[in-house]
Amino acid sequence: MSITVHPVPGIPEVRAGDDVAAQIIAAAQAGPGLEGGDLLVVTQKIVSKAEGRVVSLNDVSPSPAAEKLAAETEKDARLVELILRESRGVVRMGHGVMITETRHGFICANAGVDASNVERTGTVCLLPLDSDASAQRIRERVNAAFGVGCAVIVSDSFGRAWRMGQAEIAVGCAGLAPTEDWRGLPDAHGRTLHATHIAIADEAASAADVVRGKDSREPAVRLRGLERHVLDHDGPGAAALVRAAADDLFA
Amino acid sequence: MSITVHPVPGIPEVRAGDDVAAQIIAAAQAGPGLEGGDLLVVTQKIVSKAEGRVVSLNDVSPSPAAEKLAAETEKDARLVELILRESRGVVRMGHGVMITETRHGFICANAGVDASNVERTGTVCLLPLDSDASAQRIRERVNAAFGVGCAVIVSDSFGRAWRMGQAEIAVGCAGLAPTEDWRGLPDAHGRTLHATHIAIADEAASAADVVRGKDSREPAVRLRGLERHVLDHDGPGAAALVRAAADDLFA
Repeated sequence: MSITVHPVPGIPEVRAGDDVAAQIIAAAQAGPGLEGGDLLVVTQKIVSKAEGRVVSLNDVSPSPAAEKLAAETEKDARLVELILRESRGVVRMGHGVMITETRHGFICANAGVDASNVERTGTVCLLPLDSDASAQRIRERVNAAFGVGCAVIVSDSFGRAWRMGQAEIAVGCAGLAPTEDWRGLPDAHGRTLHATHIAIADEAASAADVVRGKDSREPAVRLRGLERHVLDHDGPGAAALVRAAADDLFA
Repeated sequence: MSITVHPVPGIPEVRAGDDVAAQIIAAAQAGPGLEGGDLLVVTQKIVSKAEGRVVSLNDVSPSPAAEKLAAETEKDARLVELILRESRGVVRMGHGVMITETRHGFICANAGVDASNVERTGTVCLLPLDSDASAQRIRERVNAAFGVGCAVIVSDSFGRAWRMGQAEIAVGCAGLAPTEDWRGLPDAHGRTLHATHIAIADEAASAADVVRGKDSREPAVRLRGLERHVLDHDGPGAAALVRAAADDLFA
């Protein structure tokens, strides 16, 4: 088995209300094509933009609570207001960063609210409201257009505990088994594996990211060779990758 | 740009004292070959085995402290003793797991001590003493054998905070820029990026892992297409991916 990782070039600048699935399909048809079993990894940024999840900071009125946290964290109070609106709760604060739990249950910096690669200054991009549903919609359209069974990941780059730098992870997925569970199965020596439960969707999102430069416009990447993880239905989505706080010795 | 990810088949079962670099070189020569700019991702397990970092639990006498922790965590006291010896400190305990800081500064379950894919029952595998040095030694040998400039990662699968499943990361690397730092550089819209610092080595280790089954004997994987991250010297190694606790808002 081997895999190939190709950017899907030619996706235009995405704007609110755009049909992002149609844009991806057109680019894939003009470019590397799609076959059954392919995995498309699409950045959260273009999905959010198409879904109108871009906000002008001038349209945001910060609450007193946001003003207070903004002073503590030396952040723009309007940005803090958006972060709070996107969050179930604040996990940690400091160093100009707020780490919160998003509506999806993700723990990340600034609730995923991001000012990079947004066209106009003074605007920021929020995560999709339901990133698994976003992946499902794209998957349905792509599979109808190509007449094949593909999987879709919506990805974003998250900071990690104890490690420098960010790694791309799956914030949404459809048609993909998000983890591969070897617990209870034999290893190469016939010994039962106890702790091997692999976050395939996150690893695949990272594999897609290494082909990209952050200044390049390559928001969609095609991975070929991961058929064994591709499902004939949407599957549990990236929601299955959220570890409940009560189970989480690492957090 | 695109990347291809190929296992290097045919590496035999590695035993203590084996010349693992020679085994990788022979397998690469018989198999997919190596070119300048290629990245070899080698699992920690074969490196540790070759370096004699396999311990029989019967040879371990647990200290009173290990006996006490073993009772609290319902683990084998001899295993706890090894975990403590491999650790600078215990970060968290519970659910039959100890999360510790290793001698390298990694925060991981059981100090990386692992009972899976070890040939004899009753034996466990420890992390290499200096996994960057291990990567450097393999890189030097591989580059001499092929007359090219390759990069080497020594990888292991780590659990993460807040996410289900494990992801493969770099515990050692040589000849690779472990992160790509876009902070201060312009994004696609000419806006300065503030938080984009990508853990290339960890993402590449994950890319290598998705081609592998945990029951397969594919401890080495070749990634082609990442030349822009490959250095003409060893570079800072995976040590550069360890985030100091004082800087770490996520931990």
